[in-house]
Amino acid sequence: MARHVLVVVAVFWFATAEASQCSINGLPLVRNISELPQENYGRSGLSHTTIAGSVLHSMKEIEVWLQTFAPGSRTPIHRHSCEEIFVVLKGQGTLYLTPSSHSKYPGNPQEFHIFPNSTFHIPVNDVHQVWNTGEHEDLQVLVVISRPPVKVFMYDDWSMPHTAAKLKFPYYWDEECYQTTSRKDEL
Amino acid sequence: MARHVLVVVAVFWFATAEASQCSINGLPLVRNISELPQENYGRSGLSHTTIAGSVLHSMKEIEVWLQTFAPGSRTPIHRHSCEEIFVVLKGQGTLYLTPSSHSKYPGNPQEFHIFPNSTFHIPVNDVHQVWNTGEHEDLQVLVVISRPPVKVFMYDDWSMPHTAAKLKFPYYWDEECYQTTSRKDEL
Ligand SMILES: [Zn+2]
Ligand SMILES: [Zn+2]
Repeated sequence: MARHVLVVVAVFWFATAEASQCSINGLPLVRNISELPQENYGRSGLSHTTIAGSVLHSMKEIEVWLQTFAPGSRTPIHRHSCEEIFVVLKGQGTLYLTPSSHSKYPGNPQEFHIFPNSTFHIPVNDVHQVWNTGEHEDLQVLVVISRPPVKVFMYDDWSMPHTAAKLKFPYYWDEECYQTTSRKDEL
Repeated sequence: MARHVLVVVAVFWFATAEASQCSINGLPLVRNISELPQENYGRSGLSHTTIAGSVLHSMKEIEVWLQTFAPGSRTPIHRHSCEEIFVVLKGQGTLYLTPSSHSKYPGNPQEFHIFPNSTFHIPVNDVHQVWNTGEHEDLQVLVVISRPPVKVFMYDDWSMPHTAAKLKFPYYWDEECYQTTSRKDEL
């Protein structure tokens, strides 16, 4: 009898884990964002939730993330050939951005103060970094990208040549589920 | 002298109106959302702001709106061949949706309760309507679409044949500025 219960529990756990981690099969159409998977994906100070995305929700043209950066935490210095729009829900920080140029490396970025209820978009392929430069408060942003899943080129610093930037694909939050889907062949 | 001042004021007003209504030329990269144009575009109970869009900001792949629906107000019954993601920031309401079928008209929609901090996406071409069915509170949503500017097919009711749905293009908030841009030929 105990064994039966165990099997039922295990099957239920497996089905639930499948649904909540790597696909929305079995989840309702209208979902509570606070019940969606939320993780740091190995990046200290980050909390990431894919609200609607390519790998989890089979979106083909747009993807939306909710991200929270603890004071001092930040995105990598990076670029991508998709459009990206930020909406700042809470907190303050700094956007570092180098407009694309014919230079071989990004060079010193421009700095922009970002604040609650502000918005900005990143021009395609511009190298950028978002940083919670505040000391006390979390920075919370909604991020919208086109052409998911995102293909990111990462820089160690602002003087790294564009040609040396490393492609990170699948990106942190897509990694775990990317292999389990059949979308691999579609790129 | 007074005449000179008037000319300067007029030129300044014109330049400012241009920038804030139909293009972001001259506006900072990081923008305060509460300072962006906010209008009902002739639809009672609606407040619409294009946070980042095709016509105003030259986005080519994604567009983000902030919309507030007063109690009782709603979108038309409509469909579009782009992806659409909603994030509910405040308030409650009802999503009406008919999955695409081989039927000649949408038919009775399914009803979904939408609530604060919920999210949902509309499958491409599914006929849908978002309605603030609450009695007291505003419903505020962030809306993300692909393939801007949006091309919307509108239905008078759920039994109108798909072939009779009327194309509304440019859509309400794109109308005023669409003619003033050069993007007309790009469709
Ligand atoms: Zn980015
Ligand atoms: Zn819609």
